[in-house]
Amino acid sequence: MKILIVGGVAGGASTAARLRRNSEKDEIILFEKGAHISFANCGLPYYIGNVITNKEALLLQTPKSFQDRFRVDVRVNSEVVSVNCEKKTVCVKNHDTGETYIQDYDKLVLSPGAAPIVPEMKGMAFNHVFTLRNIPDAYAIRDYVEHTRPKSCAIIGGGFIGLEMAENLQRSGVEVSVIEAASHVMAPIDNDMAHDLHNYMRAKGMKLYLNSRALAVTENSVVLEKGIEVAADMILMSIGITPETGFLKDSGIALGQRGEIIVNDYMETSVKDVYALGDAVSVRHIVSGKQMLIPLAAPANKQGRIVADNICGQKQKYRGSQGTSILKLFEMSIAATGEKEASLMSSGIPYKKVFTYSLSHAGYYPGGRMMSIKLLFSPDEGKILGAQIVGYEGVDKRIDTFANALRFGLTVYDLQEMELAYAPPFSSAKDPVNMAGYVAGNVLDGKMKPFYIEDLSSIQEEAVLLDVRTDKEFEGGHIHGAVNIPLDSLRSRLKEIDKNKKVYIICQIGLRGYIAQRILDQNGYETLNLSGGYRLYRAAEMDEKDEAEFYRNCLHCGKIIE
Amino acid sequence: MKILIVGGVAGGASTAARLRRNSEKDEIILFEKGAHISFANCGLPYYIGNVITNKEALLLQTPKSFQDRFRVDVRVNSEVVSVNCEKKTVCVKNHDTGETYIQDYDKLVLSPGAAPIVPEMKGMAFNHVFTLRNIPDAYAIRDYVEHTRPKSCAIIGGGFIGLEMAENLQRSGVEVSVIEAASHVMAPIDNDMAHDLHNYMRAKGMKLYLNSRALAVTENSVVLEKGIEVAADMILMSIGITPETGFLKDSGIALGQRGEIIVNDYMETSVKDVYALGDAVSVRHIVSGKQMLIPLAAPANKQGRIVADNICGQKQKYRGSQGTSILKLFEMSIAATGEKEASLMSSGIPYKKVFTYSLSHAGYYPGGRMMSIKLLFSPDEGKILGAQIVGYEGVDKRIDTFANALRFGLTVYDLQEMELAYAPPFSSAKDPVNMAGYVAGNVLDGKMKPFYIEDLSSIQEEAVLLDVRTDKEFEGGHIHGAVNIPLDSLRSRLKEIDKNKKVYIICQIGLRGYIAQRILDQNGYETLNLSGGYRLYRAAEMDEKDEAEFYRNCLHCGKIIE
Repeated sequence: MKILIVGGVAGGASTAARLRRNSEKDEIILFEKGAHISFANCGLPYYIGNVITNKEALLLQTPKSFQDRFRVDVRVNSEVVSVNCEKKTVCVKNHDTGETYIQDYDKLVLSPGAAPIVPEMKGMAFNHVFTLRNIPDAYAIRDYVEHTRPKSCAIIGGGFIGLEMAENLQRSGVEVSVIEAASHVMAPIDNDMAHDLHNYMRAKGMKLYLNSRALAVTENSVVLEKGIEVAADMILMSIGITPETGFLKDSGIALGQRGEIIVNDYMETSVKDVYALGDAVSVRHIVSGKQMLIPLAAPANKQGRIVADNICGQKQKYRGSQGTSILKLFEMSIAATGEKEASLMSSGIPYKKVFTYSLSHAGYYPGGRMMSIKLLFSPDEGKILGAQIVGYEGVDKRIDTFANALRFGLTVYDLQEMELAYAPPFSSAKDPVNMAGYVAGNVLDGKMKPFYIEDLSSIQEEAVLLDVRTDKEFEGGHIHGAVNIPLDSLRSRLKEIDKNKKVYIICQIGLRGYIAQRILDQNGYETLNLSGGYRLYRAAEMDEKDEAEFYRNCLHCGKIIE
Repeated sequence: MKILIVGGVAGGASTAARLRRNSEKDEIILFEKGAHISFANCGLPYYIGNVITNKEALLLQTPKSFQDRFRVDVRVNSEVVSVNCEKKTVCVKNHDTGETYIQDYDKLVLSPGAAPIVPEMKGMAFNHVFTLRNIPDAYAIRDYVEHTRPKSCAIIGGGFIGLEMAENLQRSGVEVSVIEAASHVMAPIDNDMAHDLHNYMRAKGMKLYLNSRALAVTENSVVLEKGIEVAADMILMSIGITPETGFLKDSGIALGQRGEIIVNDYMETSVKDVYALGDAVSVRHIVSGKQMLIPLAAPANKQGRIVADNICGQKQKYRGSQGTSILKLFEMSIAATGEKEASLMSSGIPYKKVFTYSLSHAGYYPGGRMMSIKLLFSPDEGKILGAQIVGYEGVDKRIDTFANALRFGLTVYDLQEMELAYAPPFSSAKDPVNMAGYVAGNVLDGKMKPFYIEDLSSIQEEAVLLDVRTDKEFEGGHIHGAVNIPLDSLRSRLKEIDKNKKVYIICQIGLRGYIAQRILDQNGYETLNLSGGYRLYRAAEMDEKDEAEFYRNCLHCGKIIE
């Protein structure tokens, strides 16, 4: 059997290796448009920032090493320019020789990936405008930074590549501005979870332009709407990627509206004997059931294995993606899995939500850092629909737990029951995941009745806003109109609260507020407790007011984690 | 309703707090024999090692703070000396006044914990012999270390407390010897997984006495069998703990053979209105179904919540423990969940096993460390039965994933499918958990046919021992009798291998051996591949030969992680 593979990075290389392990007999030819296969595309920003110091480290396999190990005919600089599904051939252009030739196949695997989107905008042709997808891009950017020594860089688009590049350019001594068209950077998280990230970025010295569209690039700036001009000796375009499927236009293989390849659960395209995978295909989101582009490295690798097994006669299903992802930004980690609130809302999927704050490990053991968790779950059974975490140490561990809970249909009650590894340097006897489960369970059971920051503006004037933190905390800052009765004196001061008024309880992170709620409810009050507490409110306020200096001081003195 | 709670640490304090949140009306009295409640017992070794510098940090709650917040009548230095279940009373001895009094109850909660076992052995009365359970013990040990400046300490018993103390005493400048009666320290893992730990401990300068029983303690030594004498100015007894249930002897409450309190799934004892939890009760192991003592902090906290809810009229089930645990030893982490191989064997539970080695994060991103994983699963469906990990960064994350897979009945195929958060600083596109799932799946599917180190001694002489590593690796050390054909030249050198002989394949960690196996099998050979590879073999050899110096060099040059 002759198997052709188009694309030699994550998806294509995985498929080829598994194909060969499955069968010594098949002929396997791998076409890669560029000069490199199986390179570390996720490592490129770190090469630019000199975290990865060695150029060779980016090349996980060379054509020769791959050929030696897997007996795959690797053809680099070889672009498949068209596919003829009836004749079962592809047309290949060899960029080294300029020649074009036809190659026949029994099975065809498409893993062409996706290319950075470059909008039609004035100035895109300047040679200080970059995109980052492959090794030559990375070399070009690093060379530019080293030789031209730009003072400033504007990064247009605050997604994964944009923010990883923001860190690495800043590390290289370049002043970074991030320009983002949406209200917040990092699309996988909701706006309320992005406040800490925005504050952190500003505290780290970056400039943030949110709700901002770039109109043009000049020799030393980016021009935004309303005449705002952002100084920039260098520009990185990272507004998104688009499936690189132009060569399939006349192939008869079904493509979606954005050019994505349509596949079924077996990663088969609409045409017999043609499979597709990776960043160019749309997959089913396991929460919404929608077909969509979820371009991530881990799913691509898994799909490679499934494609290879199916070509060899098995019937392996790809059960869909959930968008589990994580970003490191200096010390901070930002992670998500499943659907965010905004997506659930727009899909009309019912949900409930809780915000919790937990230390990464036992408070008495040094070095613990606070992480904020947003958990989304179904209002009936409490099935996990999504989770977002922003914090430092141990964020990666907890998002994996939520990801598995989501994938395997677990509920918030299951989160409570999880027996996770505890020792003081690693966690607490009640892990942050257990805690989120407890709080969510309390909400489902009606023991904890939450309200949210977005409800603050519609609270009736006759209601009581009750802050149960200590005097000192209250004096340090509070929500306008709140009265202060510290939790530990609440029982003795009940008379001060009017029973005929609805009580909106506020504490620092929602925990003491819950205890106050239990006390008040059992004494005949009608109460709601602010999920996320003053901590979340204050993060939003600092973000809105751009209090970078204040946040920076908080980070230094550890105050922000209280 | 009047609720009495015996024991004010993890289980008792959790129960009291949840009881109060459930109901403002009940009278709750908490008796604690010692002077402190809700203290950080897991932090005590780190206070002794001055990692936790502040004495107060160990006290999570004081009687006053707990009373203020939860309106619980906290009585410290108050020992419950007997229980009368017919009259529904307990007898309490107040150690401050010497008085004894009777207290009646509607509901009784027993959370007395467990005490260190001190064997009857000569020298136990010396004042340089210590155990570690509570705050006064920790103060005494730290005082002794600071004021007496012992040169050496013998730790008898290499469990969690023993090894945490080994690290912390060594950190305080004391030379540490660990004496262990079993063949390896850390009972939750199997012997084959303990080699790296033993090698690491020796490389860190500790002395290890395995298969060694202490017979007596002298003024400056511990005497072992065969006349071996271990120098020790200080001795820590940490051979295990025993339920502290003497006060229940005549209560009619059913106890097990080791004095453990027998409870049902609702944490109810054999006597109506009496509940028990924590280190003093036996619980069901979710793998074997056996009732056993599994004294861990996290389950105790969870049980506290369940007990409180059940007292308040709910019917919450405790679904059993699985022994998820982790130990930090300097930079190393040792973690386990579920049953180990030795326990599966003695319980007669059928299983299969694989060993895998994976980097904690992408190899091209600096700082990744190798972790070794042992995965145990059912031979039919591939259900997870247990997992053990020894490594550095990221061990805690992966053991949690395995723990959840086990608890929620997942299989090795589910491990393959998990969509975990990947970015180069956190993981690889195929996470170590995915990899373990792939290898285990290959074994179940018959694609990978493993053999194990313990099989080496029974391999027939006419078989071929084939090492497929590079020439250089082979020259650096190999298993006696092996011939070397590097993987990448295997296809062209097939003629050198006799087809009539069984081929036992060896590589470094089992990965190249698997590819070699696929090549050979498809060419008509009968093969087996060494699970864990030369890496595991060599760790065992270094452990046996006590090659501390070699291992220390390996650690320094990073060689050990290849």
